[in-house]
This record gives sequence, structure tokens and C-alpha cells, in this order.
Amino acid sequence: MAGNSFGQIFKLTSFGESHGEAIGGIIDGCPAGLSIDLDFIQSELERRKPGQSHITTQRKEDDKVQFLSGIFEGKTTGTPIGFIIANENQKGKDYDHLKDVFRPSHADFTYEAKYGIRDHKGGGRSSARETACRIVAGAIAKLILKQNKVSIQAYVSCVKDVKLSIPYSKLDLSKTETNIIRCPDEATANKMISLIEETRKAGNTVGGIISCVIKGTPVGLGEPVFDKLHADLGKAMLSINAVKGFEYGAGFDAINSYGSELNDIFESGKNISTKTNNSGGVQGGISNGQDIYFNVAFKPVATIMQTQKSVNTKGEEVNLEAKGRHDPCVLPRAVPIVENMAALVLVDHLLRARTNKL
Amino acid sequence: MAGNSFGQIFKLTSFGESHGEAIGGIIDGCPAGLSIDLDFIQSELERRKPGQSHITTQRKEDDKVQFLSGIFEGKTTGTPIGFIIANENQKGKDYDHLKDVFRPSHADFTYEAKYGIRDHKGGGRSSARETACRIVAGAIAKLILKQNKVSIQAYVSCVKDVKLSIPYSKLDLSKTETNIIRCPDEATANKMISLIEETRKAGNTVGGIISCVIKGTPVGLGEPVFDKLHADLGKAMLSINAVKGFEYGAGFDAINSYGSELNDIFESGKNISTKTNNSGGVQGGISNGQDIYFNVAFKPVATIMQTQKSVNTKGEEVNLEAKGRHDPCVLPRAVPIVENMAALVLVDHLLRARTNKL
Amino acid sequence: MAGNSFGQIFKLTSFGESHGEAIGGIIDGCPAGLSIDLDFIQSELERRKPGQSHITTQRKEDDKVQFLSGIFEGKTTGTPIGFIIANENQKGKDYDHLKDVFRPSHADFTYEAKYGIRDHKGGGRSSARETACRIVAGAIAKLILKQNKVSIQAYVSCVKDVKLSIPYSKLDLSKTETNIIRCPDEATANKMISLIEETRKAGNTVGGIISCVIKGTPVGLGEPVFDKLHADLGKAMLSINAVKGFEYGAGFDAINSYGSELNDIFESGKNISTKTNNSGGVQGGISNGQDIYFNVAFKPVATIMQTQKSVNTKGEEVNLEAKGRHDPCVLPRAVPIVENMAALVLVDHLLRARTNKL
Amino acid sequence: MAGNSFGQIFKLTSFGESHGEAIGGIIDGCPAGLSIDLDFIQSELERRKPGQSHITTQRKEDDKVQFLSGIFEGKTTGTPIGFIIANENQKGKDYDHLKDVFRPSHADFTYEAKYGIRDHKGGGRSSARETACRIVAGAIAKLILKQNKVSIQAYVSCVKDVKLSIPYSKLDLSKTETNIIRCPDEATANKMISLIEETRKAGNTVGGIISCVIKGTPVGLGEPVFDKLHADLGKAMLSINAVKGFEYGAGFDAINSYGSELNDIFESGKNISTKTNNSGGVQGGISNGQDIYFNVAFKPVATIMQTQKSVNTKGEEVNLEAKGRHDPCVLPRAVPIVENMAALVLVDHLLRARTNKL
Repeated sequence: MAGNSFGQIFKLTSFGESHGEAIGGIIDGCPAGLSIDLDFIQSELERRKPGQSHITTQRKEDDKVQFLSGIFEGKTTGTPIGFIIANENQKGKDYDHLKDVFRPSHADFTYEAKYGIRDHKGGGRSSARETACRIVAGAIAKLILKQNKVSIQAYVSCVKDVKLSIPYSKLDLSKTETNIIRCPDEATANKMISLIEETRKAGNTVGGIISCVIKGTPVGLGEPVFDKLHADLGKAMLSINAVKGFEYGAGFDAINSYGSELNDIFESGKNISTKTNNSGGVQGGISNGQDIYFNVAFKPVATIMQTQKSVNTKGEEVNLEAKGRHDPCVLPRAVPIVENMAALVLVDHLLRARTNKL
Repeated sequence: MAGNSFGQIFKLTSFGESHGEAIGGIIDGCPAGLSIDLDFIQSELERRKPGQSHITTQRKEDDKVQFLSGIFEGKTTGTPIGFIIANENQKGKDYDHLKDVFRPSHADFTYEAKYGIRDHKGGGRSSARETACRIVAGAIAKLILKQNKVSIQAYVSCVKDVKLSIPYSKLDLSKTETNIIRCPDEATANKMISLIEETRKAGNTVGGIISCVIKGTPVGLGEPVFDKLHADLGKAMLSINAVKGFEYGAGFDAINSYGSELNDIFESGKNISTKTNNSGGVQGGISNGQDIYFNVAFKPVATIMQTQKSVNTKGEEVNLEAKGRHDPCVLPRAVPIVENMAALVLVDHLLRARTNKL
Repeated sequence: MAGNSFGQIFKLTSFGESHGEAIGGIIDGCPAGLSIDLDFIQSELERRKPGQSHITTQRKEDDKVQFLSGIFEGKTTGTPIGFIIANENQKGKDYDHLKDVFRPSHADFTYEAKYGIRDHKGGGRSSARETACRIVAGAIAKLILKQNKVSIQAYVSCVKDVKLSIPYSKLDLSKTETNIIRCPDEATANKMISLIEETRKAGNTVGGIISCVIKGTPVGLGEPVFDKLHADLGKAMLSINAVKGFEYGAGFDAINSYGSELNDIFESGKNISTKTNNSGGVQGGISNGQDIYFNVAFKPVATIMQTQKSVNTKGEEVNLEAKGRHDPCVLPRAVPIVENMAALVLVDHLLRARTNKL
Repeated sequence: MAGNSFGQIFKLTSFGESHGEAIGGIIDGCPAGLSIDLDFIQSELERRKPGQSHITTQRKEDDKVQFLSGIFEGKTTGTPIGFIIANENQKGKDYDHLKDVFRPSHADFTYEAKYGIRDHKGGGRSSARETACRIVAGAIAKLILKQNKVSIQAYVSCVKDVKLSIPYSKLDLSKTETNIIRCPDEATANKMISLIEETRKAGNTVGGIISCVIKGTPVGLGEPVFDKLHADLGKAMLSINAVKGFEYGAGFDAINSYGSELNDIFESGKNISTKTNNSGGVQGGISNGQDIYFNVAFKPVATIMQTQKSVNTKGEEVNLEAKGRHDPCVLPRAVPIVENMAALVLVDHLLRARTNKL
């Protein structure tokens, strides 16, 4: 009810503030017998962690996950998996100037209004630091998906006006991790990096789009009315900090075609597939075995390195000086978050689908 | 788990197939003491019902809702509200030719794959007829919102390439219901209607965008991590048939600005508000008291009045002849669906917010 | 949240008041492909319905269930099963004298206090009439259990001081339905019936115990911490009107033995079983393959055919005259309710157990 | 779905094995603004912890709780409260002899059957060590109840054949904590202690009954159909290790009276109360403002200090030697568990009740 859980069967509940003692979570409902590849989980955390390149925030966090339960001799036991990630870089004092000030387009004002109390250090619970817990659970979900031959690959397809217009099917997605912006096209990647460098110098921030492709999804995942597969993917993405929009398959561009142009005609044969895939791998809320693909729009980070006007808790106008360590663009670090949230949705529906038939 | 419920406290569970005996639902968690305005609920159903104009399907359904419980002497009692809407126009035989055929970009194939059995008549459960139940529950939600001074208004802002580019704040939304396409700008409405008429004549279909504005939301609705207010709105919209995308506030367009341009600066004063509203009334997943606004993209209806290639349940190629009564464009009928799904989200979070503080 | 749903995967949501238009419900999560035996479902309803013998209330209700969705050509489709049971005998006027009076040991006062409004006719939602909906869902659950070789048999083992002290394993449970009290031992049954007849003549009521035995449960059902199999069975039973206690296996009598006497020693062999079954078929909250057995205590019905002192809504003392048609003892009609609630728990855990392992 | 969460609004999710690194949990949905009295929480843990007297197990655990989130400057913030309790006394090697053996009347066999894998050290997840997490959450719940003038007091009313037959209303419950068995009557307490001492010497174990009284519950808690207040209390108690039965109000003894004897007649006056309280403070599943009281039956601990026959994982007969440190009787340590589980139920329904009315 307080919204800190995600999933119905494979369920993550997370806790933790940006500058508290630790963040962490519980994964309940992970099937027994899964070999836990700790290196893989840690490598996923590395993709998200701060300080990984010069275009991300310079906050230093090791982000080492420590598992406390649910794993025995390297395998899951079916009992809840508890884990924590220590907050090492707790420069709480850096935030004293924000105790009574509401930063523009942050959650300071709304938290204070909702709860009447607020941990102001680094945004407290509203910090994107919480997404590290999603990575841990998502990485375990990915291990299950791997066994089911499902792969998820996200990449940065747009940073402000630098756009990668080539469809995913014509890209070599294996190149995504070869550059610090996580764009599979080298030339575009370089332009994106330059833009972010300039933006950083100007003390400003930029947003963009992350595209994601899921291959190998079995037919039949998704519950057809309210919990449509794409609706759950959409909610997952919209729950990520700074996300402003979600579209799947033909997306917003679907409005530019007639029905006769957009319909995906079936191909005859033993395994029924479709000639086109404007549906984005989901029909009637249920996966049809084709690639699932979608786009997620991120706004520019609200924290900028410029003085801004704002108000304090009394409603008085104040000047908000720029301080601290922040991302000029969250997109490279958000790529694994998008993937791992998608993994949570897929595994949950994989398990849910086990009860569809007698 | 099977996904036929929506909401946590104010919860709708719906049932029913397009050509079964009836559709209906149960609203659990509606607070006691609400005066039920039956005329209002029925008027909301009228806005969605088929046959309401020459640009919608000519299927005739009265869509009269019958309440069976939970209301006593005109008021809700706190017990579950059961209701049914009879299916009067059950021309099941019209669908005999679809028994063994999968219509392109419909849910026929995925239902059969998921369940191993399928009610083929009018799409069975996958038909948008189910959304009438959402209207009933949403209309009751609207009655609660009305008492809380919250209003929700949706309108058609785009049909294919006919776009209404004026921002909502400069439109007179009270004119939305004055035309059959539900666009508040008369000139644009006429163009849209013409386009749909032409499309219908060509046996084709078109999609578009519905925009929605919520005014008067109290500060503090939404749970800050996974159940962000906009994430629940997004899921609600993406669960509507034919929806391909969702964006709120600045939406996808947010990527075109720098952080310094997009941030909403607070205005000093007793009731803290913001000078701009690129956030779309939600910050950190929690409402900030400003207008909430969002866009929903609908693809063209998959059923077209043209012969299409398809396959049967054996995977053999067949010709699918065009038959039956269908919408050339679902947008005018989807306007109340968008509003009422939004109402369900808002009321649910209104009740959830009652437990935030001691 | 308002508590009108039962189950996690196989979920019943019920609605309806005793003297409203109809009661009914939605069963969500029933697997696709189940052949629906309508005669069996109706026969289960007959076991619960009023007027079935001279020792039950004489209210006449046909209790014919009407299915509205989720079944296609005799089989479940995986979509929600909506159903209604009409209230035929709506003598609402019989209850005018109760409009402003709180009957002792009924829910009149607590409903009014909780909701500020109350349907006083026949107890409204608090009437045991609601349990007919549980029978419908439970009977479908029984059809699934039958395919899994699981059988559930309940019987009356005690009416006031008439007790059947023979353990279930020495009884011929197939005789349970041969008499109107539903006690498998004929001599005891006759004594029970006589006691109830006398009690009825005196305008009074009696309670007793229903025992229940579940055979054939597969090993591994139940979730080990909060949702222990016996905890969910206990909640199911305690949710039935008039129930005051629940015990399983050795039950309250377990306190009379030492650990060395009560422990169930395993028998060696391929299929591991136990020599005794004081555990009642559940160890650590998980079924171990032995018989599950438990007892449920029912208090005497609160409505008696004698004048009682009570208070009205103003808190003034009033005389409450005896009126209407009531059960002198609910036990014979509660036997199928106990069985069918147990069936709901078992099927839900049967489906939940599908996700335990990779 | 995997059953490691308890509660709907005020929700505890726990994790941890008896001999893993730590146990812990997340409390989601705790209202903001509650002052956290750490000493009180720790004192509740002391009441449950091992080694507290010579009649409990001599395992040594400090059971110091460490809070990681959700509390800011001594007050709850509305965000999830994460906590851990280290496992200090991890003598995992002591359990090597149990790796391939199923202890009688323990959960070893059922866990292995359910999951195909099992942490055998100290019972792993099936150990009652997990209940320490319930104490942490329950103690916070008690802090909320204290503000609402609700008090919960449990005590040992029976150890095997040593019974305290005096009703709670004639006992001085403030004396419960004056002796190590937690029985408010000194003479009976001494007899219980003697019996446990003898039992321990004989290498055996005994069970008994814990009674619990809740005073000050506001009228209107409990949801009337499936989530009746007493049904949720019953489930809570039945989820505690070793519990075999639950009864409330008149309980099983209700079957010995006629309806005319058992009915609770209302007293006239401004605040409506009842002359007797056979209902146990709950009518129709909803609290009526009178004392709530119930009994919980605990079987003797399954681990005895005597050699027992058992089987190994191959189904072969083996001798199971007695080893380790165990409780001859869990009742004194279970008293705070009963209270704190009751507190979780009460607070959850207190919050749920906030949404009953407009």
C-alpha cells in the first residue's frame, strides 16, 4: 500500500535513504534451485554505480551487495532473499543548506506535504540511489530469464537533439557497452558524449531516450485486462526517477498510419509469427513471441550547477546555490535500470503464467 | 493474479465477454455514505456506448447498468457494489467464420496460445466492451472526486495528422461534449470528423491522441517509489485497448530542453505553487497541487473493412473477409474511458493517502 | 482491503446482501480448460440451502446459480467467472421492526458504528446468505481437486453435549449425507436431531463442532512463514459466520502430551510417511502428504424465538420480539461451507506451489 | 505469494535463516511522525530472546536490532523501515549430523519436498528465530496502539495439566512479568516452573496455552466478510511456530450453552456496551469496543533430548541423537510473540478503518 513493493509472485520490496546507513531489500518468491552468479549481479551494479565515468556524478560508492539470506551453498532455497548495500559516502552535512529549502522539480516539497517530515540529505528516499536495489533483484531475474533464453538489451537512443534514428534491428546491440554513454552506434555515441561534456561545463543537464529490446519471450505472458504485459512494463518504467513517457511497438508514431498499414499480418507455418511487428511483441496484453521493444523518455536531471530561485519551508523566496556532485545526464546509468526493471516484469509474468491452465 | 482487478483500496474487479450473457463487476472498498447519482453514471455509459453517432460502430447496446448490492436507500453502505450490464446484441453467429481464424493485430492468437481455449465471439474477453465496467466504477469514483473538488476532463487532441496544437490551458474544455469527436476546438473537430468519415468509407481505421487534464488534486497523492501517481496513471491508460503510449507533463518533449529550462520554479507565498508546470502536477511521484495533464496514444482499430491475409489455428494461410460492425476510430468513445480510469487511480490514491500520517 | 476477496491466485470476490436483488461473485484465476459440472455445483448449493429439512430455517430459496462469463462450451477459459444467485424470497418488510434496533450478538451495532449506515433487512451483508457464493467458488475448486485426487469431507461431530467421540479414521464418512444433521454415525445423528427438535420447540438454538478431513493432499502445499497451510485454513474457517474456534491435528488436546508422545515418527520407505499423524498433515506450515484434519466450533445462532431485551439506535432499552424464520442449529448447513472454504484454500495453494521451484 | 509478508497497510516482510548472517525485515506502511522508542523495542526483544532464564534454551543471542532506514531524528518518515538482527551464535557445524536427516514433527521433510533444497542448520527458515522480526514490527505497532489507548497483554494460562482456571478479568495481569513463566498467578506460576524443570531433566518437552486480552479497541475494526478481525487474529496466531489451535470469546466452550444463555445483551446508555462478553469483543467480524480475548494452544517443542527413530533423505531408518540447545517449553518466550502479532493485526485494521467512510 505504501508502494515499496514491485511484482506479484517475484516480488521486490526495497528500503533505504540516500544518506542513511544502508539501502537494501527483500526478494520474495524467487523459485528455489537458481544458481546465484554473484559476479554477474555485481557487474550489473557497476553499470549503474556513480563515478563510473567522467560524464556521471563523481560521488564514490562501491555499491557492494551483501546477501543475508535465501541462498544456501550458492543456490536459492525458495525463502526470501534479504540484501543490503552500505552507504559509504554519507556526506550528510553537505546537505545542511537544504534542510529548509525545496529544490525546484525535486520531491522535497511533495514529501514534506505528504508526510509532514522529511529526510533532506541527498533527497532521502526520493534519491535514485534506491534503484540500486532494483538492479540487485533485476539481476537475479535476468539469471532466471537466461535459463529461459530471454535476453534484454537497452541502449541510449537519444540525448537531447542527438538522435539515433536507425531501428534496433539494424543495430549491433553488442556494442552498447563499448562506450560510456551506452549507445551502440559509435559516431552517435561520440556526439552524445560531447554534448554531455558541454552541458556539464555549462552547469546544466540534459535528458533523452532509452530504447529497450527483449528477445525470446515465450508466447503467453501477460494478463489480458488490467495487467497487460505492456501496461506492467510501462508502470515499471514510469516508476524510474525522471521518466516522463513510455511507448511500445509503433508507439506514438502509430497514429500516423492507417489500420491497414499498421496491422501485423501472420505468417503461415508451424510456429505462427508475424511479417511485421508494429505490435511490439504484445497483442491484447499478451506476448506473441515476437521481439518486445519500447522507448522511455527521461527529462534532464533537476539538479543543476547554477544558482536558482526557490522557496523555503515557510514559503519565502530564497536563492539556491549549486553544490554537491551530480549527473549532467542520467541516461548511461539508467540503461541497466531499464533492463532490470523489465527483467522484474518478465520473470513475474513468467511465473504467473504457470497457473493459466489446468 | 489473473489481472482482472484494478486498485488497492478502491478496487474494481470486472468480468464478462463481448457476447456472453452479461458483463459486470464488483467495486470493493467504496467508502460508505456516498449518494449514488444513477443518472450521472448512466450518462457516463452513454458517452462510451456504441451507436452514439455515425462515426462509431453501429452495434446497438443500451448499456443499462443494474446495481445488485452495496447501495441502500440511495447511498453506499461500505459493502461491495455488484453490478451487471446485459449483453443485448449477442449476434454470436456473426462470428462463426472467426472460430478458427486469428485476426491480425488482435488478441485471438495470444489468447489461444495462453489458455488453449478461446471464446471467439466478438473477441470474447479481449473486446473493449469490458471497458463499460470501468466506466461504471470510474463514474462512482468521479462522484467521490466531485466532493473533493477534483475534476477530470479528457478530449481528442489528434486524429492521425489532424492535430490540435493549442495547449489545454488555452482551450475551453467545456466545449468538448459539443461535437461527436469530443474535441474542444470546433474547427479541428470538423476536420477530424471529415477524416474519420473518409476513412470509414475506405473501409479503414485511424488512431490518434487523447489528452487529459485533472484539476484540483490535493497535494500529497501518490506513493513515492513504485506506485508513483503518474506510474499508476500510466498503467491505467496502457491497460486500455489499443493504447500504445503514455506521457505526462512535458512528456517526450522534455528531452528537447535543458534542465535549467525545464525546472519548475516555486512561487513564494502561503500556498506554495510553481510558475511553470512542466512536471505535470507530479513531483517524485506525488501530486504537488498543480494541474495533472497527460497524453495517451491510440493505434488505429485492428478490425478493418477490407479483406486481409491471415492464418487459421492450423497455421494455414486464409483470407479474412471483412464483416460486422466496427469503429473506424475509437477515440471519441475512449474519451470517457480515459477519464474514468484516471478517476479510479485518483480515488484509490486519495484513500491510500489517508494512512500516511499518524 | 475491504475484505470481500479470498485467495491469492484462485480468488473469490463476493457481493450481495440477504435481501437485495441478488448475491454473487467473481472467481478470478481459475485455470483454463476445466470442465464445469453444473449439476455438481448446484448439488453443493442444495446442501447449504435453507428449507432442506425440518431442522433448518423454512425460508425458501431456490439458490440457482447463473454463470455469466468465463465458461465457453462447458469449459473454463481462464477469464473471470462471474455468477449471480437471485434473492427470491425478499420479505424485506418482515424486518421493519429491526430498522432501529440492534439484535444481541449480531452485527447490527458494529456495522452501524463502522459505516454510519446499515441495510437492516435480514442482516444485510452480515447474513450467512453470503456463504452461498463461497459454495459456488468452492465447488469449482473441488472440481480441480478431484482431478488431483484430493477429497474433502466434513461432518457434524458434536451438537451441544451430544458428541461423536470416535476418531474420523474409524468412521464411514460416506454415511454423512444419509441423515439431515450430516453426522456419519446414525445413533449419534438421531440424538443430535432430537436435541435440535427440542431446542427448536423451546425457541432456542444450539451450537457444536464440525470436523473435516482432507485426503490426498500432495506434499508441499503451504507457504512456510505467514501463509502456513493451517493458518490459511484457520482463517478460512474463522471467516464463517458463528465460528468461535479452530484446531488442527492434535489441536488443543496436544497440550496434554509430552513431546516424546506427540512427535510423529517417520516410516522408512520410498514414499516417506509417518506412523502417527498428530501433526494433522501439516509440518512447518507445509503439507506432508498425510491426512489433514481439523475441528471448527460454532456457537448457537444468535437469533432465538424468545423475547429479548436490547437497545435501539438511540441507546434506549427495548424489547425485541422473536419473528421470522431461523435455524435452531446451523451445523448441518455449515458442513458444505466448511468443505468448500477448505477447497478454496487447497486449490489456491496448489496453484501457488507451481512457482516454488525453477 | 511466497508468504513472507503480513498485513495489508502496515505490512511486515521478514527474511532470514536461523544460522545465516542475519535476520531482518521491512515494515512498509508505518505512518509518518511516530516517535520510535528504541528502548521499548529492545525490551520486547529481550522478552523473547533465548537464554533469558533457566527454563529456556541456553543459546546466546543478543538480539540487538539495527534500524537502517525510515527513521529520521527519532521519528518515522513514512518510508519503509528496514532492520536487521545479526545472528551471533552461528554454530552451524553443530548441525552437520542433520544435513541428511529429517527430524520428526519438524519442517525438514516438507521443506525438502517443497523446494528440493534446504538449509538444515538449526532448521533454517523454519526456525522460530524468525519471530524476532515479528517482535520488532509488533513493538512499533504497539507504539501506535499506545497512542490510541489500546493495550495488549498475554500470559501463560496453562502448561500441560497445570491450568490457571481464573478468568482474566479476575487476574492482576500486571504481575505477568514478575516470574519467568509469565503467569500472573504466583502459585500457578511456581507449579508451571516446577513442571518445566522436571520435564527438562527428563529430556522432554511440554506445551500449553497462552491467553491474550486486548483492551481499549475502538469500535469498528475488522472487515466483515473474509477479513473479520478475529479471523485475522486467528491466522496471525496460527502462523506462530507450534500453534495447534485458536479460540476467541467463549471459544470451543460456546457449544455448551444455548443461544439464550450465550447472547450478549446490550446495556442502554450513551455509549452502547454489553452486559456479558461471550462474543469476545468482536461481533460480525467487527470490534464492538468490549475486551477482545482469545486462547492459543501450543504443542510441546518437537526437539527432545532423547534418541528418536527417524529417516534420512533416502528414506532409510536412522537413530537421531539428541544434541544442541533447546527449549523444554516455548510458552514463556511465546508470550511477547502472541502480543506482538496481535498488535500487527490491530494496527493494520486501525489504518484500514480510516477508509470506511466518506
